[in-house]
This record gives sequence, C-alpha cells and structure tokens, in this order.
Amino acid sequence: MALIVQKYGGTSVGSIDRIRNVAQRIKAERDVGNQVVAVISAMGGVTDKLITLAKEISPDPTERELDVLLSSGEQQSIALLSMALNEIGVTALSATGRQAGITTSGSHTRGRIEQINSNYLTSCLADDQTIVVAGFQGITSEGLIQTLGRGGSDLSAIAVASSINADVCQILTDVDGVYTADPRVVPKARKLPEISYDELLELASVGTKVMQSRSVEFAKKYGVKFEVRSSLNNNPGTIVTEEHEAMEAVVIRGVSIERSQARVTITGIPDTPGMSGRILGALAEAEINIDMIVSNIAADDCARHSFTMNTNDLGRAQVALKPVLSELSCDAAIETEAGIAKLSCVGIGMRSHSGVAAKMFEALGEAGINIGMISTSEIKISVTVEEDQIEEAARVVHTAFGLDDE
Amino acid sequence: MALIVQKYGGTSVGSIDRIRNVAQRIKAERDVGNQVVAVISAMGGVTDKLITLAKEISPDPTERELDVLLSSGEQQSIALLSMALNEIGVTALSATGRQAGITTSGSHTRGRIEQINSNYLTSCLADDQTIVVAGFQGITSEGLIQTLGRGGSDLSAIAVASSINADVCQILTDVDGVYTADPRVVPKARKLPEISYDELLELASVGTKVMQSRSVEFAKKYGVKFEVRSSLNNNPGTIVTEEHEAMEAVVIRGVSIERSQARVTITGIPDTPGMSGRILGALAEAEINIDMIVSNIAADDCARHSFTMNTNDLGRAQVALKPVLSELSCDAAIETEAGIAKLSCVGIGMRSHSGVAAKMFEALGEAGINIGMISTSEIKISVTVEEDQIEEAARVVHTAFGLDDE
Repeated sequence: MALIVQKYGGTSVGSIDRIRNVAQRIKAERDVGNQVVAVISAMGGVTDKLITLAKEISPDPTERELDVLLSSGEQQSIALLSMALNEIGVTALSATGRQAGITTSGSHTRGRIEQINSNYLTSCLADDQTIVVAGFQGITSEGLIQTLGRGGSDLSAIAVASSINADVCQILTDVDGVYTADPRVVPKARKLPEISYDELLELASVGTKVMQSRSVEFAKKYGVKFEVRSSLNNNPGTIVTEEHEAMEAVVIRGVSIERSQARVTITGIPDTPGMSGRILGALAEAEINIDMIVSNIAADDCARHSFTMNTNDLGRAQVALKPVLSELSCDAAIETEAGIAKLSCVGIGMRSHSGVAAKMFEALGEAGINIGMISTSEIKISVTVEEDQIEEAARVVHTAFGLDDE
Repeated sequence: MALIVQKYGGTSVGSIDRIRNVAQRIKAERDVGNQVVAVISAMGGVTDKLITLAKEISPDPTERELDVLLSSGEQQSIALLSMALNEIGVTALSATGRQAGITTSGSHTRGRIEQINSNYLTSCLADDQTIVVAGFQGITSEGLIQTLGRGGSDLSAIAVASSINADVCQILTDVDGVYTADPRVVPKARKLPEISYDELLELASVGTKVMQSRSVEFAKKYGVKFEVRSSLNNNPGTIVTEEHEAMEAVVIRGVSIERSQARVTITGIPDTPGMSGRILGALAEAEINIDMIVSNIAADDCARHSFTMNTNDLGRAQVALKPVLSELSCDAAIETEAGIAKLSCVGIGMRSHSGVAAKMFEALGEAGINIGMISTSEIKISVTVEEDQIEEAARVVHTAFGLDDE
C-alpha cells in the first residue's frame, strides 16, 4: 500500500465529464489498495472568468480581495470532485488550503508556502479517507486567504507530499513526461525516465514549460521526488529527483529551444564601473526580462554589452535605453537584431565531461549553422542562431549527443 | 456616528452594475460618518448554477461538499463588493463566514448559528474599515464549512448585528417594508412604520414572505431590532422590534392571505387516544406540511379531523392516508375540498381587545362571503373562504379594521 499525492490541473478537471474521469483514476488507485491525496486546480477557464469580473469592477483590483475571489475556483472544484468520488463509492473529503493546514506568507496573489500543518490530512488518512485538496491557496498566519500565483497548484502538491511523507507525488498533466527535446521539433526525441531537479530547472528556464521553476526549486529544497505524467493515459512519466552518480554518465540530458529572441548590443560604453548596472537597471525598471548577457571590451577600449530578450520587448527596450545612452557617452550607440532563437544543451554530466561545447559547435558548424552569442553555466550551454535555422540546429545537436530514439 | 449592518440579497448584488450601486449606497453612509458592515448573498443565479453542476455529478450530492461548493458563491460576491468599494475610495475588507467568526452547528446545508466571535470584526471597525461579510455561511467547531439554508443571509446579518452591538440592522430587499396587506390584493394597504416580531412571524407564516421565520425568531431571541427596507430607494422601511405598549392600541396589524389551499376531512374516527397522532404522523412521514387543524366530535361519537394543506399536496396526502384509514376503522372516510384560500388577521392588540373575531366574521358576512374552517391563536384569527372570494375578503376585512390608507 502506497500513499500517493496526485496533482490534476485545470484542464484535467475542466468539465463534469473530466471530473468524473479523474474520480475514476483515483478509484483505480484505491482499488489496488493505495491511499490518495488529490491536489487540484480550479476548473479550466474559471479563474480567467473571475479575473474578468474583477477587471470589470476595477482595472487594478485589490489583491487581497483578488485572492478571496480566485480561491473560490478551487473551492468549487474540490467539492465537485469529492462528490464525484462519493458517487462512485470512494469516500472522499475536500479540504481547502486552510483545512489542509497550508500557511503562506508574502504578497497577496503570489504567496509563498511557509509550512503545512498536516494534522487534518493525517487524521483523515488514518480514517482511510481519500482527500481532495485545493491547490493554489493557503492562509496567512493572520487567517487571510492567499493564492500562490502561476503554477501554484504544483507547489501545493509538492508541499503536501512533503508534509505527509507521501511515497509518490504525481504531477498529472497534458504531456507524457519530460522529453530530450520538444517532439514537435525533434521527432526523434525520447521521453526521459528520470531527470535531476537542476536539469529540469535549466530546461524550464529555456522554454520547456512542463512546470514553473519555483515548484521545482521547492521540490529540490525539500527533497520531494515527483513524477510528471499524463492524465490521459497510464504510461509511466518522468521522475524528477536529486541527482545521483549514474546520471552523470549522460553528458546531455536534453536540448531546448526558445524562439522569437532579439539581440540588443550597446557599443561605445566607457569602461568604468557602474555602467552595466545603469543599463540593466533601466531595462528592469521597464519590466523587460533579459536573458543571455555577454560583455567584452572592444578594440577602442570601450565596452560592448549584448543581451537577448523577447522580440516583443524590443521596442520598449529601445525607448527605455535611449535616455541612458545619451547620459553614458556621446559615442554610445545601440544596435539590434531580431529574428534569432536560442538553443540550449542541458546536463549535469557536463561537469565531468570535457569538450561538450566543442562538440556542440562542431555539429552546428557541419550543418552550416552560424552561431551568434554564446553563454554557458555549469550545466548548460546556450547559443543563438538565426530563427529559421533553430529547428535544424536542435535536431543536429540532439543527434550529436546521442539522444535520438533509435 | 452610527454602526449600521446592511444586508443585501442576491438580486441586489446580481450584476457588476448592481454591485457598484450597493457600493455607492454604502459610501453614502460612510460620507455622513456612519460605519457599515455589509452582509451579502451570492450574486443572483450563482447558487442555482452551482447546484446544477452538483446535480450533474450526483442526483444526491454529499451535503458536506455541497456546503463547500455553495459557500464559494458568497466568497466571490464579498470579494467583488470589497473591490468596488475600494475602487470608489471606501477602504473595505471582505470576511468569509469563518473570518467573521460565525460558528455553526447542526446538519450540513441547514446549519444553525451557534455564536459569533466578533474579535476580527471589532478590530476592523476600530481601524475604521468597512467590512463585507459573507452571509449564509459559517464554520463548525471542527473547522468545516457549513451553510445556513434558505434565508441564511438574513440570519447572518441579524447575528452579526447582535454580536457587534450595531445601532441599526437593515435588511435591504426588493420590497419597501412590511404592509398591512399585499398591495397587489388590497390597493389601500399601508406600509407599517413598525411591527412586533410575533406579528411578523404570524404574517410570515401565512404567506407574506418578507423573511424566513427563523431569522425573525433569531432576532426576537437576541432582541435585535431590524428594519426591512428597499435597496432601490431611500424610503424608510418597517422597523421590526419587541412589542411595546403603544403597539397594543392597534387591534389588527395586518391581513394576510394564502391561496391554493385544500381541506381534507377525515370522518368516522373512533374517539380513542392516539388517533390524531397516527393520521398526522402519516402525513409528516410523507413530508406534507399541514396548516390549520380543526377537530371535533360528531353526533355519532366519532371524531372528525379537518386540516388544510397546499393543493399540490392533496394527491400525495390521499395516498399517505389510505392505509391509515383502513386500520383506524371500517367507517373512516376521507373527504376533500380544493379551491379554497386562507385569510388571517394578525395583531397583538387582539389580546386586550374583545370582539375581534365577531367583527371579522361580520364584515365577511356582510359581503356575502361564507366562512369554512376557523382557527385562532393568541394574536391571529384565520378562516378559509372560497378561493375566488379571497381578494374581496381581504379588502373588506382590511377596511373593517380601519387599516385602509385614507
């Protein structure tokens, strides 16, 4: 008998029929003797509808009240799923974030889980009840309802699994697991049986949106092993876990791409302290996320800063940078290039294997693909290429590192 | 400066525009220096939609979960009204039943308010905040969400008013107040400036559905004076309060009618103990509400029981009574009459004034209206008449007791 935490997202509980399907999946676990704590999101579309209502009242609705409003979505779905379970003979109890003992802190609409008092869950499990917990929500120490922001239900599931020492934590979603690459781009991509937290984090940050980074970070911090698997079939998914020695044998775990990138290069910057801070500060103020940052000294002793961002932000970036440039130096100039994309190779094996970058560049070179910017971290190498070559780039690198499904 | 509790029903907060109107009404009170605690229902229609969802899942959904589901409706409306208040510069905080400290007990979907811990409300008021409380809900001592059943928001408002010692408790609704009679039936009906709890209870029980009886009973028990008034205008409404001496000067406070009644008479019942209990028990088991009960001994020493019920229940009543009758006596027979209606006169003045019944019967007799059953209580006289004469009956009695608006 295992104690399983299963997280179902908004799509999985998006209609009465789907709620019934989820109930059947949970029943199947009960039938083989397992205990289940389901952590679920609001029915798909409900949260958006509630936000629309709030925006009708105010363009900038009070966040404290937005939390009260949005958390009602999960309150409805947990009640409905519990009813569906009871209806098929699985005695089930719903638990709001508060009832599940989830204490949060931080700002409204983007709370952090501080701790879980598992007394209620534990006592229900001792009575052999199935429990349906509202994801995405908790209460502050003052008793106010707080939501956890995007991806909050994953976070709730991992935190609940940790607090009740679950044997398994399954994140059920509309993908089969984590792949070596996006199968729509690289047809030979394979589903990974396992991946380390750090690798998933690096892949997530470059466009493989299986989960929000902070859920993975939370799982890493508390050592919660979890499985990403499909809610549509019973195939095994991908186990996300702490890295172990055997994992290092694989040099590259996966390849990831990010499209619609643009490069901004600022030239003629005096090589004095504080310059980079001024530039990046201006972009941060304009709420523009920048990604790769490359900087070096040009022949004229002036610094050159290059960074990438989403193409959509390019116009706003130029507006934000204009006043800064004229302050920096009369020679400072801005040069932009849109239509590029980013390719990343990720793997903890990189730490102990040399020549990874060389192999990657070689593969791209042989395919006649030119590399723009290069940026590396301990377990990741990213390069920019022309956007119309990104798919081919992903395929040749995937093949070069032996990731292809044979 | 007064502390005012205002209760708004589902219709009053039934759309974003109406929520804005309610916000403006509350702001008007704030602008003249009053403090407001609003107790509100779910947006009109929301509760019904949620019940429909639940019924799709199960014809008989778990009541515990129905409470979790339904209480989300008020959670949404309190958040939206608080946002609307903040938007127009009235700093407001929402409070769920739990946050408002409302402890309930009893069955799910029809909880009773046990007590209110007003600490949170009091501290918010000390900060001069406007508070928007979710009506219809509370939590049990075990922390489970419980709803209060029909009319529950009125109950919440009266309980909150009691717990915070409000100066005024206003039940805002779609009627202007309590009238001497239904103005659609008696055009000369007047709005009452005040009425006692008991009078309203008796009127409510005979068809003037201003409020659910139990809310009035609760107000009476805790001595909460409240005002029934319109949410659509600023006219003064009707104060519902403990009776006082001046009230007794008025013999009849109001006249009320109930249509679609049917009479069932059972004859030939042996005059031995337990017979009435058998008959009424059978009807109770079939969940048929009976109203007037008249019983006497006929010439043949057998008892005759007559009672009234809604015409819709007549068929079921006959089915329920059939096996009982054959057990009682071979002579027992059932006789039914549909197409009747009930007219009631209510007033605490009746206690100290004699000849009230005579005056009523006389007025009806002069109008050529025949009286069927008669039933009296300390402050009420009810009679049945032919349904097609009920409106005229109401008018002549209204005139006879000097209730007409001159």
